[in-house]
Amino acid sequence: MDHKEIYNEYLSKVEKKIAETVHLDEPKQLYEPLKYIMTGGGKRIRPVLTMISTAAFAADPNAAINSAVAIELLHNFTLVHDDIMDQSPMRRGKPTVHSKWDEPVAILLGDVMVGWGYSLLPKSSDHPRADQIRDEFTKGLIEVCEGQAYDMQYNEKKDITLVDYFTMIEKKTAKLLETCGVIGSHIAEAPDEEVEIIRKFCYNLGIGFQIQDDLLDIVADQSKLGKKIGLDLLEGKKTFLILTLKNRAKSPEALILLEEFFVNNGLPESKISKMASMMNEHGVFKIAREKSNNFFEAAKNELHKLNNKETGMLLWLLDTIRSRNH
Amino acid sequence: MDHKEIYNEYLSKVEKKIAETVHLDEPKQLYEPLKYIMTGGGKRIRPVLTMISTAAFAADPNAAINSAVAIELLHNFTLVHDDIMDQSPMRRGKPTVHSKWDEPVAILLGDVMVGWGYSLLPKSSDHPRADQIRDEFTKGLIEVCEGQAYDMQYNEKKDITLVDYFTMIEKKTAKLLETCGVIGSHIAEAPDEEVEIIRKFCYNLGIGFQIQDDLLDIVADQSKLGKKIGLDLLEGKKTFLILTLKNRAKSPEALILLEEFFVNNGLPESKISKMASMMNEHGVFKIAREKSNNFFEAAKNELHKLNNKETGMLLWLLDTIRSRNH
Repeated sequence: MDHKEIYNEYLSKVEKKIAETVHLDEPKQLYEPLKYIMTGGGKRIRPVLTMISTAAFAADPNAAINSAVAIELLHNFTLVHDDIMDQSPMRRGKPTVHSKWDEPVAILLGDVMVGWGYSLLPKSSDHPRADQIRDEFTKGLIEVCEGQAYDMQYNEKKDITLVDYFTMIEKKTAKLLETCGVIGSHIAEAPDEEVEIIRKFCYNLGIGFQIQDDLLDIVADQSKLGKKIGLDLLEGKKTFLILTLKNRAKSPEALILLEEFFVNNGLPESKISKMASMMNEHGVFKIAREKSNNFFEAAKNELHKLNNKETGMLLWLLDTIRSRNH
Repeated sequence: MDHKEIYNEYLSKVEKKIAETVHLDEPKQLYEPLKYIMTGGGKRIRPVLTMISTAAFAADPNAAINSAVAIELLHNFTLVHDDIMDQSPMRRGKPTVHSKWDEPVAILLGDVMVGWGYSLLPKSSDHPRADQIRDEFTKGLIEVCEGQAYDMQYNEKKDITLVDYFTMIEKKTAKLLETCGVIGSHIAEAPDEEVEIIRKFCYNLGIGFQIQDDLLDIVADQSKLGKKIGLDLLEGKKTFLILTLKNRAKSPEALILLEEFFVNNGLPESKISKMASMMNEHGVFKIAREKSNNFFEAAKNELHKLNNKETGMLLWLLDTIRSRNH
């Protein structure tokens, strides 16, 4: 089987386990939206990353399936709650839970998903690393919340720096990917130092991914992106692009446009293309591309430290993410 | 020391541990409200119940302090999220988190509290019953969410029965008290059958408490209750009282008033005293008092099964709750 086929095999196992896990009847108000959010498809990068991290150490990836689904529950819990906080009406082309049902249902759904997530993690009678796995899961939960809190704080703060940005995305984006790799390699009972290599791989993958995501918000092929081009600019998100422009802009024209962005917490649609040209002129896209590539390279370098390990799938996943254009 | 003094000693240990736990700085948007909600006082019945369940088996109650605070975090998480769902502006005489800050902050605060709760539970390297303790905590989390979901479902449903009511309060009220007793006795490494006795004690205590709470909503001394008399009737809550009246009422007058309550999801303030007299005439208060006493007695009978155990504090807590009048 080639890498894509292996990915699809893991994916179908994840889907099967998810279907089993969310097969709950009462109370309907809770478990209908659970099925809705969990069986809506998606690339399932996190659970698959968990399984391929197990397989990298020549252990059976099926041993990671419960933990993989636990992390997918945790990830979807953050989406359900973030969508309420951001008042997002749609996600993956479908109405969000709070808009299809209501906010109380969406709050409660997120809450119960955390519980079901924990219920899937191994007990110490099942696995010698059960404590470490639970700890990593809990740290993932806490840090993802902290990351979202920083994100909200930054919405109100005007003087955000790139340092603030990295603090936020480390927690909001990279941490849960680390959780996948670390839990997956614990399942395989990998030596501590190799678990840490996988953690760094995932960290770098996550940061590279987020910077790339910020870039694609403006430069992606509109027809494939599935959302409006420049949405981050409309919403006033403090992205890698805008903070890099802020560091480099000197012309009055650029400074005025930036001032408008920071004071009004976003730009009107009519000024998006102007801002995009300004970024291009200041080399912001190039810097973002280089920066995200640096993180992807750093991730790859971590894998090279794993001698004699089956890192082919991890490398393939990295390259697949790296080469996306939407 | 008498029982009250012992309670106060445990209480001060709980407060101290809580203060240590919530001493977190950044992100401020998350950890200022955490301090606010967790250091706002309260009777701390749940953490103290956890500690006295440990002490009942002649183990050191201090060994239960982390788990006790974990449960208090879980309990307060449910209050923060329930207050958003119910749109409650005040709790314990202070503004609720979502009204002092905003809904996103309150959602995220609740979420991170679950994480910090889990982080306080023992690892398997610390305690031989770590798995059981975590399982019980997770079941507590899941069932409390299910109980709240039933509560919300019942707001929209007109044909609620006493059976539905018990399903709801078992999960929403009794379950977390069970969690306290069960985790406390696991900390003491009590034999399985004695853990189950403590569970039943807590279950009966919880159900007795909830029926008493429904009753006090109407018959309490207004000056001590700290909230409006008849609030459940105003809000259309399907309490033990209203469902008992529904089962017994035959006169057109009572049926019309009940119809108004169920169709409009509550009564106007002008009709509260009329409804209260109606309940009194139909013996509803007497039935509620008897019913809650039956559960309190059943709780006491469970304790009698624990031969040679130090159940004095559990008994005292039961009697203290039972004799409250607001």
